[in-house]
Amino acid sequence: MLRLSSPVAAELVAVERQLAAELRSPHDELMPVLQHGTQLGGKRLRPALLLLTGAAVGSLNSDHVILGSVVEMVHTATLIHDDVLDEAQTRRHVATVNARWNEHTSILVGDYLFAQSFRLAATLSSTEACRMVGEAARLVCEGELRQVLARDVLSISEQDYFSMIRGKTAELCRVACELGAKHSGGTAATVEAMGCYGDALGVAFQIADDFLDLWGDDGTVGKTLGTDIGQGKVTLPLIRLRETIPTSQWDEICNILTGPVDDRLDAVMPFLEKSDARSYTQRVAESFKDRAISSLGCLPESAAKRSLVELAKFSVDRRF
Amino acid sequence: MLRLSSPVAAELVAVERQLAAELRSPHDELMPVLQHGTQLGGKRLRPALLLLTGAAVGSLNSDHVILGSVVEMVHTATLIHDDVLDEAQTRRHVATVNARWNEHTSILVGDYLFAQSFRLAATLSSTEACRMVGEAARLVCEGELRQVLARDVLSISEQDYFSMIRGKTAELCRVACELGAKHSGGTAATVEAMGCYGDALGVAFQIADDFLDLWGDDGTVGKTLGTDIGQGKVTLPLIRLRETIPTSQWDEICNILTGPVDDRLDAVMPFLEKSDARSYTQRVAESFKDRAISSLGCLPESAAKRSLVELAKFSVDRRF
Repeated sequence: MLRLSSPVAAELVAVERQLAAELRSPHDELMPVLQHGTQLGGKRLRPALLLLTGAAVGSLNSDHVILGSVVEMVHTATLIHDDVLDEAQTRRHVATVNARWNEHTSILVGDYLFAQSFRLAATLSSTEACRMVGEAARLVCEGELRQVLARDVLSISEQDYFSMIRGKTAELCRVACELGAKHSGGTAATVEAMGCYGDALGVAFQIADDFLDLWGDDGTVGKTLGTDIGQGKVTLPLIRLRETIPTSQWDEICNILTGPVDDRLDAVMPFLEKSDARSYTQRVAESFKDRAISSLGCLPESAAKRSLVELAKFSVDRRF
Repeated sequence: MLRLSSPVAAELVAVERQLAAELRSPHDELMPVLQHGTQLGGKRLRPALLLLTGAAVGSLNSDHVILGSVVEMVHTATLIHDDVLDEAQTRRHVATVNARWNEHTSILVGDYLFAQSFRLAATLSSTEACRMVGEAARLVCEGELRQVLARDVLSISEQDYFSMIRGKTAELCRVACELGAKHSGGTAATVEAMGCYGDALGVAFQIADDFLDLWGDDGTVGKTLGTDIGQGKVTLPLIRLRETIPTSQWDEICNILTGPVDDRLDAVMPFLEKSDARSYTQRVAESFKDRAISSLGCLPESAAKRSLVELAKFSVDRRF
């Protein structure tokens, strides 16, 4: 759990308790795999966002704890399915479900978490949260699906890149913040501002992820570097490189990016280092961080607001 | 679509229209894969059940069409994920999503359908349908997960078998019938009776599926026979065989069932034919059909009720 979220520490513990309860099963043979699933989430960023926006806008109630668990379950479901897609063996130093069991189990555990999250959202009194979470989950899948269908499409535009990462990462952050504000009685304008905060933070967070995949420390990040390039995913640094070098050089890079997977990172790195891709990517991430922080302008001062500012800074400054 | 559902033909057309609308996307590149997904459902059994129970209990309204689409989308999502698990190349003579695109796409399209179905369920005025559909989807995943974890467990009991197929097949039929009855203003007793009908029909349907996997005609069934045995799934005919032969013979069969996948069907078939496994399996399926039909006793006579009776008969008499 993020230490930055200390103003809502008690509620985060309640979310953990709720998650554990939701993933209990009368069938003993399912317990190890379901419990393993909940441990993969790690940072609990989305529940933290939901609780902090709720606390910054008004006061927290039991809906926030339920919705915090809901968004984390949706997120964990997508992580488990991502690990199948990426054939990942570990996530944050823990064996993935596909590594410890198999792909079949991963697909079904992800589905189980999706279903259970919607069932839990439907325990609230209105259908609004169900609709918002359902739509956010759909946009997450749409973003990922577009990225899978665009694999090995080296000509993807910066605009398409932003539209995809908005779907796959920012959407669930946005809806977490909107739900937090809404369930604390926030006005329409406040709910919208919190949605903008979540969106900008999510985009900054994903750009930082893509940055760390190239320039992170693999021990700290907890996964193999260069997996995006290995999988034919074109992210912001590569797009910037493409936009700033002569066509002939880009043709050379295209050969590398469609060549042997294990050679790609080492071969592309010198081109990236010679260009301004690294500083440009950092600058863009910073600009989204600034946008996130300025969305908080409408809120009164509070410990929760300060944590939201810190979270936005963390989203780009982190090493993992 | 099932012809047996003619009393609700107009509403089934409306469900098709709704499904097509739900799977439209502003992103052109997603259209072929989403539209392909909707064509895999085939029989539209679950919407037919929902509409027929609704019509048999009272009158149909727009909720029934929405919920018919919802249950079909959940079902299609599980089918698409099943095809990944089974590495199936065709389903009812149509290429599967994994065959035409790849596994990654299948996983994400299934997730997309799950999310979209919940979003659609949440457009109704109360959270009850969301809760029921979420819980049914969870039980479907639980049933499948138990079956995957029990693969190659040759000692599985008849009771475990029923509990698993209840989850993976009967649950969504049960909830379709309950929703149909509930949204036509059925009393609690009628809703429960319709739930029993759906459950018994679903169990009968799955036993027939398992029967067809051994004794069907592969051209008519539209898939390779013996896939269950190939995947180490123990179904009712094998359980019956185990219960009725000497231990020494069963040991011999265990060797076959853990031996080369392609040899299993031909090697096991003589044992099955010598036993009463075939007639026993048919008899059990018939008993669930009878139970389904007797659950309809509380309904007044109507074309819809007659179709429900026919559907129960079809569930065990079908050849595909």
